[in-house]
Amino acid sequence: MRARPHVVVVGAGFGGLNAAKRLEREPVDVTVIDRHNYHQFLPLLYQVATAGLNAADVAYPVRALFRRQRRVFFRKEEVVGVDLDRHQVRLAGGPPISYDYLILAAGSTTAYFGVEGAAEFAFPLYTLEHAVILRNHILSLFEAADSDPSLIEEGVLNIVVVGGGPTGVEVAGAMVELVDKVLADDFHDLDVHRARIILIEQMDHLLGAFSDRSRQYALRALESRGVQVRLGTTVRRVTPTAVHLVTGEVIPTRCLVWAAGVRAGELAEHVAVTRGRSGRIVVNADLSVPGHPNVFAVGDLAEIDDGCGGRLPQLAQVAIQSGRHAAEQVLHTIERRPRTSFRYLDKGTMATIGRRAAVAELPGGRRLTGPVAWLAWLGLHLVYLLGVRNRLSVFVNWAWNYLTWDRGPRLILRPEVLPHAPRPPSDANHVGTLAGDTSPPDGGSADAEP
Amino acid sequence: MRARPHVVVVGAGFGGLNAAKRLEREPVDVTVIDRHNYHQFLPLLYQVATAGLNAADVAYPVRALFRRQRRVFFRKEEVVGVDLDRHQVRLAGGPPISYDYLILAAGSTTAYFGVEGAAEFAFPLYTLEHAVILRNHILSLFEAADSDPSLIEEGVLNIVVVGGGPTGVEVAGAMVELVDKVLADDFHDLDVHRARIILIEQMDHLLGAFSDRSRQYALRALESRGVQVRLGTTVRRVTPTAVHLVTGEVIPTRCLVWAAGVRAGELAEHVAVTRGRSGRIVVNADLSVPGHPNVFAVGDLAEIDDGCGGRLPQLAQVAIQSGRHAAEQVLHTIERRPRTSFRYLDKGTMATIGRRAAVAELPGGRRLTGPVAWLAWLGLHLVYLLGVRNRLSVFVNWAWNYLTWDRGPRLILRPEVLPHAPRPPSDANHVGTLAGDTSPPDGGSADAEP
Repeated sequence: MRARPHVVVVGAGFGGLNAAKRLEREPVDVTVIDRHNYHQFLPLLYQVATAGLNAADVAYPVRALFRRQRRVFFRKEEVVGVDLDRHQVRLAGGPPISYDYLILAAGSTTAYFGVEGAAEFAFPLYTLEHAVILRNHILSLFEAADSDPSLIEEGVLNIVVVGGGPTGVEVAGAMVELVDKVLADDFHDLDVHRARIILIEQMDHLLGAFSDRSRQYALRALESRGVQVRLGTTVRRVTPTAVHLVTGEVIPTRCLVWAAGVRAGELAEHVAVTRGRSGRIVVNADLSVPGHPNVFAVGDLAEIDDGCGGRLPQLAQVAIQSGRHAAEQVLHTIERRPRTSFRYLDKGTMATIGRRAAVAELPGGRRLTGPVAWLAWLGLHLVYLLGVRNRLSVFVNWAWNYLTWDRGPRLILRPEVLPHAPRPPSDANHVGTLAGDTSPPDGGSADAEP
Repeated sequence: MRARPHVVVVGAGFGGLNAAKRLEREPVDVTVIDRHNYHQFLPLLYQVATAGLNAADVAYPVRALFRRQRRVFFRKEEVVGVDLDRHQVRLAGGPPISYDYLILAAGSTTAYFGVEGAAEFAFPLYTLEHAVILRNHILSLFEAADSDPSLIEEGVLNIVVVGGGPTGVEVAGAMVELVDKVLADDFHDLDVHRARIILIEQMDHLLGAFSDRSRQYALRALESRGVQVRLGTTVRRVTPTAVHLVTGEVIPTRCLVWAAGVRAGELAEHVAVTRGRSGRIVVNADLSVPGHPNVFAVGDLAEIDDGCGGRLPQLAQVAIQSGRHAAEQVLHTIERRPRTSFRYLDKGTMATIGRRAAVAELPGGRRLTGPVAWLAWLGLHLVYLLGVRNRLSVFVNWAWNYLTWDRGPRLILRPEVLPHAPRPPSDANHVGTLAGDTSPPDGGSADAEP
């Protein structure tokens, strides 16, 4: 028996951590559960994937965050369901955990919209493992082309990014810098200028959530850096060696980065609650789940009313603020105070295109583009990154990259492929794939070096 | 046809890189071949394994080292043999490469001396992947014990290190700091003081290559920090859940670190040359292979006469100096100058035990112990580390660790298990292993999270 109310927080992303941080000095016991033992800073994953940052720079051990809080506990576990009647969280690898209050903050995952071959052969970018897998893959493709330049003809140096939102724009911008400024020197014997970076977007503009001026700036900036942008088209089919567009065009590539959509994390499907668009959990104004006042859903996992008839977007700021709000509702309930409605404070949105190029839209219609927006982006991400050492390391890396045009950690260091993650295509060094083998690649050893 | 003589260097460790660096501005073409696309700084692998440094801090991309040298080429490939008659190096994944001169610098690997179960269940520490696998494993064991404290009884927190040379001493010293100073805080709900760090050494003293005074200092320093040192005993058998000593003692452990011996890399077995102790390639005084004047073996792979009837030890300094010497012999031959004999310049040896504790033995019988030796060790390793950014990062991490008693990158981020590496025991979260399953663990997905 616990003497204090037990708050279970599922997920150690922005939503879950901000909920737990809000509760850490309050008269409650808190258990944070995540399948990773670290918080991952999603906004910078694309920089790990493009060899600008170390994996460890954008991750922070959850236990380290709560070292001094004796009443905050952590469990590295996979949550497979919630028993709302018994007030229990079910785990993949242990007995269930009982809660008095539950905050669901399991985030989101990639949406493939049923596109044939996408789940099998596209590279998602939603976890640190994904980022390291993508980095290894791109570097391996260049190594393969260096060993056998005839592969360039087969499109082995083409990188295709699907989705013209902030993630797609950031990935495409960073890829073109990696290839043009770094790999061109590393592979001085290879025709690196034959590499193509192609960005595909369904709408007739990039950055749908931004103003027209920002959209056009982003398009111009990407194109002037050498990204080929295809607007108004979508992917029909993905194979291990090509992407087929609805226009009939076939682009040979062994590296398709899928930045086209998100949906609520799988956990939402295993809780008996109402789900809305993209599988998100519908919540009341106080972020509690209808019919279960002690259960809250926050961040990307929740479908939160924006107060104007719409839904709040899946952004870090929404997760941070909603996580904190749910924690406060727990305290209100314990203290027998009335609950309050969640009010989102819009702090604006940003996207970076590359060196000295970004767009930022602030509340009240203020817009920034170019070097000023880029500096604002750098500063803000340093502030939101967890841990002094990580900030220091990211700062040193960014300063270095900026001054030298170099990148640091372009290592092919292979992370194990986790079975719960979408499986990435086989490595380029795997002869079967290079020969156009269309059998679904297997994770683990079949994927490794000969 | 190449206009310039082609020098092929196998291995991008200390020996190979120093050979290639010596040749980079000379009238030769150089091809460096390594199975990794990075140089790994072996002396600091144990700090990656104990979460003191990032993996990327101790690795440097080989291509980055030769970005400005248009006549130095790199191939990320596995060398599977040498055809000495045809002057060709055989690769696992491509056509053979012809050489005019060949410098073999493939290094060494772990020697298990036929101990039953060691190759299957012990953790080696000879590559960056090994280091990351070991770090993941130790952190996973603590997570498993936190979920189910009854596992402590089964020895899940016991870490056993076999081998009392510099590597074993360094690993044991770093482990005890990780557990006592970092994990004890991270896992505040776990009886971390029940963890045991045990160091096993066959001789009746640690650090066989050092003076008696240094040996005793190391023993006292380790014991005062809480390492249990067992001298004069060896391992008879390793199982997934225990290590059996020749004395009959059985120590329950799921983490046995094997630092007991090295032998020449496997490549030595696939070259038709005379091999000496530990499989090393016998060389002439100029480091060429008998009967093949244009083929050299250097570093750990070579059995080099110490000029006093013995053999040079497998140390970084021997590799650095012999790699450079072999490169110079190539130049002597091209310039039709006589070859010279290799003379090793002893710069001393060092081993660190932990915070402010190390031993150093300099030429001429000078010895250092304690904080002075520790500072010398830190400085020297910073100097020999490749790359300004890596030095900066290591320096920041060391300063941070020293000032805060914290460690940074204690992430469980899984590297794929490579089939050519000895397979590590299954992860602690794998129920079969925890239940005492003795079937050999499988790499890849069977090893991953449920």
